Amino acid sequence: MPDVVSVPDPDTSLERFLEATKDARLDSYKALLRIPSISGIPAHAADCRAAAEFVAADLRTAGMEHVEVSETGGHPVVYADWLHATGKPTVLVYCHYDVQPADPVDLWDSPPFVPVVKEGLMLARGSSDCKCHVSMHARAIEALIKTRGSLPVNLRVVIEGEEEASSVHLDGWLAANRDRLKADFAVISDTSFFEGNLPAITVALRGLVYFQLDVTGSDVDLHSGVYGGAVDNPANALCQIVAALKGPDGRVSVPGFYDDVAPLTALDKQAFASLPFDEEAYTESLGVPALFGEPGFTTLERLGARPTLDVDGIWGGFEGEGPKTIIPAHAHAKISCRLVANQDSERIFQLVADYIAKVAPKTVRYTIQRLGDGNPSLTAIDNPATQAAARAIEATFGAAPLYIREGGSVPVCASFESILGLTTVLLGFAPADGRFHAPNEWMWMSNYETGIRAIARYWDEVSKLSTR
Amino acid sequence: MPDVVSVPDPDTSLERFLEATKDARLDSYKALLRIPSISGIPAHAADCRAAAEFVAADLRTAGMEHVEVSETGGHPVVYADWLHATGKPTVLVYCHYDVQPADPVDLWDSPPFVPVVKEGLMLARGSSDCKCHVSMHARAIEALIKTRGSLPVNLRVVIEGEEEASSVHLDGWLAANRDRLKADFAVISDTSFFEGNLPAITVALRGLVYFQLDVTGSDVDLHSGVYGGAVDNPANALCQIVAALKGPDGRVSVPGFYDDVAPLTALDKQAFASLPFDEEAYTESLGVPALFGEPGFTTLERLGARPTLDVDGIWGGFEGEGPKTIIPAHAHAKISCRLVANQDSERIFQLVADYIAKVAPKTVRYTIQRLGDGNPSLTAIDNPATQAAARAIEATFGAAPLYIREGGSVPVCASFESILGLTTVLLGFAPADGRFHAPNEWMWMSNYETGIRAIARYWDEVSKLSTR
Repeated sequence: MPDVVSVPDPDTSLERFLEATKDARLDSYKALLRIPSISGIPAHAADCRAAAEFVAADLRTAGMEHVEVSETGGHPVVYADWLHATGKPTVLVYCHYDVQPADPVDLWDSPPFVPVVKEGLMLARGSSDCKCHVSMHARAIEALIKTRGSLPVNLRVVIEGEEEASSVHLDGWLAANRDRLKADFAVISDTSFFEGNLPAITVALRGLVYFQLDVTGSDVDLHSGVYGGAVDNPANALCQIVAALKGPDGRVSVPGFYDDVAPLTALDKQAFASLPFDEEAYTESLGVPALFGEPGFTTLERLGARPTLDVDGIWGGFEGEGPKTIIPAHAHAKISCRLVANQDSERIFQLVADYIAKVAPKTVRYTIQRLGDGNPSLTAIDNPATQAAARAIEATFGAAPLYIREGGSVPVCASFESILGLTTVLLGFAPADGRFHAPNEWMWMSNYETGIRAIARYWDEVSKLSTR
Repeated sequence: MPDVVSVPDPDTSLERFLEATKDARLDSYKALLRIPSISGIPAHAADCRAAAEFVAADLRTAGMEHVEVSETGGHPVVYADWLHATGKPTVLVYCHYDVQPADPVDLWDSPPFVPVVKEGLMLARGSSDCKCHVSMHARAIEALIKTRGSLPVNLRVVIEGEEEASSVHLDGWLAANRDRLKADFAVISDTSFFEGNLPAITVALRGLVYFQLDVTGSDVDLHSGVYGGAVDNPANALCQIVAALKGPDGRVSVPGFYDDVAPLTALDKQAFASLPFDEEAYTESLGVPALFGEPGFTTLERLGARPTLDVDGIWGGFEGEGPKTIIPAHAHAKISCRLVANQDSERIFQLVADYIAKVAPKTVRYTIQRLGDGNPSLTAIDNPATQAAARAIEATFGAAPLYIREGGSVPVCASFESILGLTTVLLGFAPADGRFHAPNEWMWMSNYETGIRAIARYWDEVSKLSTR
């Protein structure tokens, strides 16, 4: 991967401060990574709270005011603000301190919650998704306040603790705190640069529908010889249902699934085609025999502008070594759909559920548990706040950013739009191939360092914009 | 369930002996059940050996000679003989001391390896499959030798330790010990009475093909948002393959799968139709919404005379609580086929493997691990050794046995025929619904007790047959 060229910052006092505090910064980032704040596993609730307390203390140290660990009914939100830049825009900054589960833990080269820097990479669960951004924002704020005594803009910071668990309590918290979340726009830091570490601003995010399908047959596992042939098998039935949801060509078979998908314009297609992308290298890096997806679209279009349906987990019956001859009593699958503008997560869930009702064999029973969802999001490239971010990135990373659509979901984006009425700018510095959610998650330390400069520069750029 | 009527044994000294040793017999049966001799789990190898040593000592106590714990390369075989009935038939008796895994252990009402008798039932893993028969044969031998000083026939006893792990080493052991296994016929005790505890002799057993299908995609789990749409999902691909193996009507879709199946004659169909069977009660006892199987056959025909294809276990990706958004790196299924006469396990495996090669998407990789197999078996009802068993059962249980085809597999049956050239009689006393392989496995203590009398009577009946 090419190294990013760092353009010297004109604010030399800020740069001197950042030089002088480099070691402390690394220690603080590592300390946050050491907390196993896995929001999806109830046993880690205390760790999530510990991470929230850590972030709150850190923002206080950085110079933020009204710092609060605010209850949500689930893992808490950390709120803080600094509102003394009279006449300047107010920005709502969003990040999350929670992380994905670390399993399978035995595939990690080093323990997931023991951060280590190796050849310029920070290795740890959450290093790129998304504790790097939590740390970078705090450090940019700290550097500005410590060197100038003030920020160039008004900031309200919201650090969430349930992003990896579908942000189940965030919408309620946003609605309840609407008054103190007024801003000109929102900055969400939970995105990546483009493949090859090319600076990029994400202009679209996919939404999510996530559910668990539980299929049951007999009350107990049955001997497959004594009963085989007389009753349906819940695991076979589950496979039959899952296979019915998507055709062998990769197109989702649920009727109506694609109805609301915003079609790609000629300009959209051109933007996708202009992104540098080595399909062969990408295939090799993933270790798959071939790429695969919906016919009629390029790989980048499939990732950015087309919805998906994937099994995230499947289980039932005997998983041990050797043969055990049973008809399992039950079988289960976790299934998720990534959505794109203008699909609605509620409508898509209903379409999928209705189709399952149609294709599920009547010789088994099933239930569906919803495990969260979020709507997709799209922001205009020519939005002034997006263009200010582009200038800050070019000034610090030495290259104008690409405008990309990202396949992942940050449901809060849609919530900020619908509940708070805010446009969002997606300003993130993670590597495109950072193994988020997988073993050996990593972050480029050079992006971490230059990104702090980019954020500080961004607030200077935003201070030149008019308030709304 | 109706109680079995016990007909008084004319050999009153034998009956007196059995009355006097009832408590000791129960203790010994329980002691064998306490050994977790799970042959399919390598960690239980020492337990399997302990069970073999226990059985050897027990047969020695019963009066058997040349008792030996004989090495096989896997779990040992216990061999013993008694050959002083000059001019009388020699019978090779087969049982197995190994058991299925006990998981899911939390679904047992009492610990699987802590045997308890409750309302006339012995509850424990292996109580009916098949330690009851190991114990019953030893007790019948013991009663005859202790009361008469001899057996009415010559017996060679072979107690195997890998029946639940596809008897992988048995064929080699049988071939190597061919000389000391000479007999007039074999008796295999690993079968059940009919539903409602109606005395029955099994005349057919199904064969088995068992394999594991491992599907792999990327080297690591991938973020389903970042990569979803660009690559195939091994769990979806696995479901697609499994769904392709069997049609929604329950008929196996593998070309050629049914080619060698012996068609049912009018007489066969009449024998099936004459078996008492309450389909509604059967459905209710299993807790399934409906029965389900291959079109054109009754439930009993599907179970006894038709082959199957079932998923025994399936797994891949995230199984924990809550949502984790990944494309799993790999997904797996254990798949088994029950075979009927005259299917050949080797040929069926090849047909299935060839079909998987045809239907598996090229966008994933897969491998197949064979986990054992066995050929089906069929024995004539009018065989003199079968008719002698029928007389012994009627004399002790008070009812002539039904002749049934059983859905389960005892691959050794085919091995005895092909390697040793022996006809086999299937003499078993387990309950039809004994939850073999499932939690809360159980055995009727009344069948255990009366079955010991039936076995002793059987040796008297066999002593009247001519040798071959």
